[in-house]
Amino acid sequence: MADADLQTNDGRMRAVIERITPSVDNGRFAAKRIVGDAVVVEADCFTDGHDSLACVLLWRREGEAAWHETPMAPLGNDRWSASFVAQSVGRYQYTVTAWVDHFLSWRHDFARRVDGEDLRIAALVGAGLIEEAAQRAGGEDRTRLTSWAARLRAVLDPQLLKTLGLDEEFAAVAKRYPDRRFATTYPVEHPLVVDRARARFSSWYEMFPRSAAAEPGRHGSLRDCEARLPGIAKMGFDVLYLPPIHPIGRINRKGANNALAAGPADPGSPWAIGAAEGGHKALHPELGTMDDFRRLVASAKTHGMEIALDIAFQCAPDHPYVKAHPQWFRWRPDGTVQYAENPPKKYQDIYPFEFESDDWRGLWQELADVFRFWAGEGVRIFRVDNPHTKPFPFWEWALAELKREYPEALFLAEAFTRPRVMHRLAKLGFTQSYTYFTWRNAKHELIEYFTELTQGPGREYFRPNIWPNTPDILTEYLQFGGRPAFVVRLVLAATLGANYGIYGPAYELLEAEPRDPGSEEYLNSEKYQIRQWDLGAPHSLSDLIARVNSARRDNPALQSDASLRFLPVDNDSLLCYAKSDAEQENLVVTVVNLDPHHVQSGWVELDLAALGIDAHMPYQMHDLLSGARFLWSGPRNFVQLDPQRAPAHVFALRRKVRTERNFDYFL
Amino acid sequence: MADADLQTNDGRMRAVIERITPSVDNGRFAAKRIVGDAVVVEADCFTDGHDSLACVLLWRREGEAAWHETPMAPLGNDRWSASFVAQSVGRYQYTVTAWVDHFLSWRHDFARRVDGEDLRIAALVGAGLIEEAAQRAGGEDRTRLTSWAARLRAVLDPQLLKTLGLDEEFAAVAKRYPDRRFATTYPVEHPLVVDRARARFSSWYEMFPRSAAAEPGRHGSLRDCEARLPGIAKMGFDVLYLPPIHPIGRINRKGANNALAAGPADPGSPWAIGAAEGGHKALHPELGTMDDFRRLVASAKTHGMEIALDIAFQCAPDHPYVKAHPQWFRWRPDGTVQYAENPPKKYQDIYPFEFESDDWRGLWQELADVFRFWAGEGVRIFRVDNPHTKPFPFWEWALAELKREYPEALFLAEAFTRPRVMHRLAKLGFTQSYTYFTWRNAKHELIEYFTELTQGPGREYFRPNIWPNTPDILTEYLQFGGRPAFVVRLVLAATLGANYGIYGPAYELLEAEPRDPGSEEYLNSEKYQIRQWDLGAPHSLSDLIARVNSARRDNPALQSDASLRFLPVDNDSLLCYAKSDAEQENLVVTVVNLDPHHVQSGWVELDLAALGIDAHMPYQMHDLLSGARFLWSGPRNFVQLDPQRAPAHVFALRRKVRTERNFDYFL
Repeated sequence: MADADLQTNDGRMRAVIERITPSVDNGRFAAKRIVGDAVVVEADCFTDGHDSLACVLLWRREGEAAWHETPMAPLGNDRWSASFVAQSVGRYQYTVTAWVDHFLSWRHDFARRVDGEDLRIAALVGAGLIEEAAQRAGGEDRTRLTSWAARLRAVLDPQLLKTLGLDEEFAAVAKRYPDRRFATTYPVEHPLVVDRARARFSSWYEMFPRSAAAEPGRHGSLRDCEARLPGIAKMGFDVLYLPPIHPIGRINRKGANNALAAGPADPGSPWAIGAAEGGHKALHPELGTMDDFRRLVASAKTHGMEIALDIAFQCAPDHPYVKAHPQWFRWRPDGTVQYAENPPKKYQDIYPFEFESDDWRGLWQELADVFRFWAGEGVRIFRVDNPHTKPFPFWEWALAELKREYPEALFLAEAFTRPRVMHRLAKLGFTQSYTYFTWRNAKHELIEYFTELTQGPGREYFRPNIWPNTPDILTEYLQFGGRPAFVVRLVLAATLGANYGIYGPAYELLEAEPRDPGSEEYLNSEKYQIRQWDLGAPHSLSDLIARVNSARRDNPALQSDASLRFLPVDNDSLLCYAKSDAEQENLVVTVVNLDPHHVQSGWVELDLAALGIDAHMPYQMHDLLSGARFLWSGPRNFVQLDPQRAPAHVFALRRKVRTERNFDYFL
Repeated sequence: MADADLQTNDGRMRAVIERITPSVDNGRFAAKRIVGDAVVVEADCFTDGHDSLACVLLWRREGEAAWHETPMAPLGNDRWSASFVAQSVGRYQYTVTAWVDHFLSWRHDFARRVDGEDLRIAALVGAGLIEEAAQRAGGEDRTRLTSWAARLRAVLDPQLLKTLGLDEEFAAVAKRYPDRRFATTYPVEHPLVVDRARARFSSWYEMFPRSAAAEPGRHGSLRDCEARLPGIAKMGFDVLYLPPIHPIGRINRKGANNALAAGPADPGSPWAIGAAEGGHKALHPELGTMDDFRRLVASAKTHGMEIALDIAFQCAPDHPYVKAHPQWFRWRPDGTVQYAENPPKKYQDIYPFEFESDDWRGLWQELADVFRFWAGEGVRIFRVDNPHTKPFPFWEWALAELKREYPEALFLAEAFTRPRVMHRLAKLGFTQSYTYFTWRNAKHELIEYFTELTQGPGREYFRPNIWPNTPDILTEYLQFGGRPAFVVRLVLAATLGANYGIYGPAYELLEAEPRDPGSEEYLNSEKYQIRQWDLGAPHSLSDLIARVNSARRDNPALQSDASLRFLPVDNDSLLCYAKSDAEQENLVVTVVNLDPHHVQSGWVELDLAALGIDAHMPYQMHDLLSGARFLWSGPRNFVQLDPQRAPAHVFALRRKVRTERNFDYFL
């Protein structure tokens, strides 16, 4: 693609290729797909003048020497398209090649020629091209092409000549041996990461193992977690995510509600990692043994679930790294290690790593080894704490290494920060990303944000994972909205996002007390103390959650985000949107009353033509939450939602309703 | 930008740079500006964590060894900006470098520290950073920084320490010696082409020299063109563009109205280039001598005009190239040269060049020499005929070579073809491009197309040149719309496009007869015959054209396209738009009645705040066509346009109207 040069390039490379999609920063980063996806690649391809072009998609698994080739078809306006199926997890590459095809041009013109003499001369030209193709062919094909050329030279009758020249079978042979000497190949080999299906569709449940004990007052363990698995599986989750499970530092340990000084019984924050018992590769002794951990991983599997671990790269002051690798920390002139701070705030219980250390290579290797250690114990999903406070080059290197060793590994970036930073992390290789959903409550905010997420440039690499709460975030909407607010935010998260999660049991038990007015921190947060949860409480949302997750599992429409489209409703408190599967067979329409306080009603507008619905026939809306079925007809239908009873419909839309026409005597 | 690698890269390069603008295909092609422009460059720059970033724009003229550096300022949301002035015609390059700046981070945190002990330790850390800066500095600066560091180490009083640490003057010195060891530089050096002002603002008049004779029946000459210069200058044009002026082929010459056989008196088409008298470097004998040509070029200059030549790379069968360079043509099996064709249509008077010739290098050199020949005769503007039927690599090479030799040269691409092809030619180096304006008549079409042209990605490289007619195109709007149609299309072209042109005298004399019904060809087209024009005819638009061009010359707002914004009018036949200069001092609002048959009226809506108009004061609309002045006030004002009298207003908007407040006794 450098400037054409009389010496080094061939000026006869006349085909031009531009604007390949998908393309993340012109191929600097990988687009993302899942196994089984048809990867559609498009490009603008054209040449000067009126000659015919041939375009071919080149694709391969990374490491394969040769390209697979798939012919591209023109879409009009110089856009070409082809697709290949990503059949296995791992990295692929693709690019496009194109050339001016003289045989195709000849054939195109030959079909339009009328003058007899003209046809005869054109037949001789064609014979020449076909003889060249014969030279490129071998065996039988060479013989067939040679004989075709000979006949084109011999026949004189214009009508016969035309029929012979346009022979489809011969043409098919000739097309297989194009002259590609002057083919242009787009110089950027675009990378593609193919993940397993859970990268696109997952339901997360976050839980503190130390609060999992059945009896009050006891420190919960991994064995207690194991006992909780059936209940979590019954709610329909497939990822059980545990905050850090490592030994917790004792120096400068925080007390309940983030008190500066901990009492002797305070368990400390699991994110203050490392103590005499070990660091990132060790288990907190009170949680159990590595055998218990392996049992938990295996048992989760039998319940259709996976364990996800939290990887938080920071140390308590008594983390063994501090003594073993002092060069990985920043030292202050007073001989102490620089703790985390954001002046005037200080976090003296946390030492960040010094990534500008002269031994950055040693640090990188060790941090990658932390992932490797837990991957060795069977963990394939990692939620990464604050990745945006570690250098981007580290993540690019580490995630590439780890995905090479464990192609099925998934990484969720917990980066609640500025948009460019979050996008960069997703580009660098994080599989899924936290979002701003937590703070998007109004209709226009949700429409704008989810349109950007699903249709903006990030759609190729940024997979949202939608959380209505986390141990750090109890939003004001939840604090003040009561039970309806919890239902609304759950339904939104689970139907707007194919990937979503909740932090429980705080969520299903409607925990809504903030530490201070105006704060988003939970009162008596599990981050600093052990909690006892009344899982059987009658107000628990667990049944509703089970229904929502079962709707997700049964409806492919809810298992990806690309199809999301918002539908008009004439009420700013009602949000309505549709999702469908790739074949548009499964269709889910969700209507949510965003107002947790008042009954709201309005007219929902469906684009029947786009949804493939017969405008003259009724269609059925089956509410997957309540089980109720509504017959709708025409594009506008009335909806009313009472937050106290059911603030949302999740409708499976069935296009055909039985009528007398379905009886065979009607035919 | 390659994957971070433990061996070859330094993992401590923590700054990230993305999305530099302007950027054409990620720097594969040059953005375009004119001399004197402030070239604003922006980029997303950020790093991990909370450290401070320093970003610098690097720019230079191509060929300069060292970069000039301009510090970038943050715009918010991780976007940074800086600009440099393009002070001369030629090629520039720019990129961005950024680094985590520990001194800036330290200073930022120091300002927020409150604790005394904390301040003292931070002062020691700062002293260390400042001592490092001192090592990078020399002379006096080193001394100053060293003494600053020493004082930071010595002072104990927190209040004094804080004042000392935040000293502005010392900080300014330290900032000049940043630690750039781990700076990231965006790897693509973006090219920029800086043209002279006429690239952005030009008024073209196209004329057939052979029709320029004052007396009927005589073949016009370059001397006759010279005599026409005052009249064309009086209309306000600054580019006089001549169709090909070379010897015209005699073999297969076309007759009047494109008749297959020419009569002995038929002069032939000027685009059938080459005969015994010479080819692309020769003058048609009847037009005059090379001395006449040089006189014309010089004389045009005295009238503030430039001569633009038409370069059409194709040959008549009797062009000397055919015998001298048979390898530049495609030969058919019957021993004849392949003529131009689009089966079943044949153009036997035209031989295209065979760009896949083995001697493509020789052909490229010769074609570039054609430009060089005329550049040697003082021509600096070329209108290139059908560039889209010659290979793109040829244009990239040729235009780069020619701009290197003649940086002031301008090239207009006459490519009426598909959008991608037109854009590619502009990217490859054409200065200006013909557009689809000719076929955009309805309000919504004009708004959509000109919004795309002025605000789409092409705005960085595709400079539209707007023509209401050409010798090939007499649109149906002009055929059926009468005089109002000619006025409307003229005003649209001249005010929507800073570059525009007309093919005259057909235009100003309202020539509107097509060769056949439904055709866009002129009856008795000058392409095939000599015409005599009655330049003094009372219906001539020449006075109106002079007024339009004078409005363009007097109003910087009309001399560029980037500011174009369409304004709402509640009538689909009325089109209204505003343009302003870079400083928003000069403001022109145009209102056009697109309906050539009926009086139309409506309410025009102005965004007063955006235009900087006091909503409580009247403002003056001075119609530069009629001279009338209207006092408007508020955002909505009434307009009525009678196509028979004046189908358009071109208003200079004067924000301030004199009132009693202007009298000094009012103060």
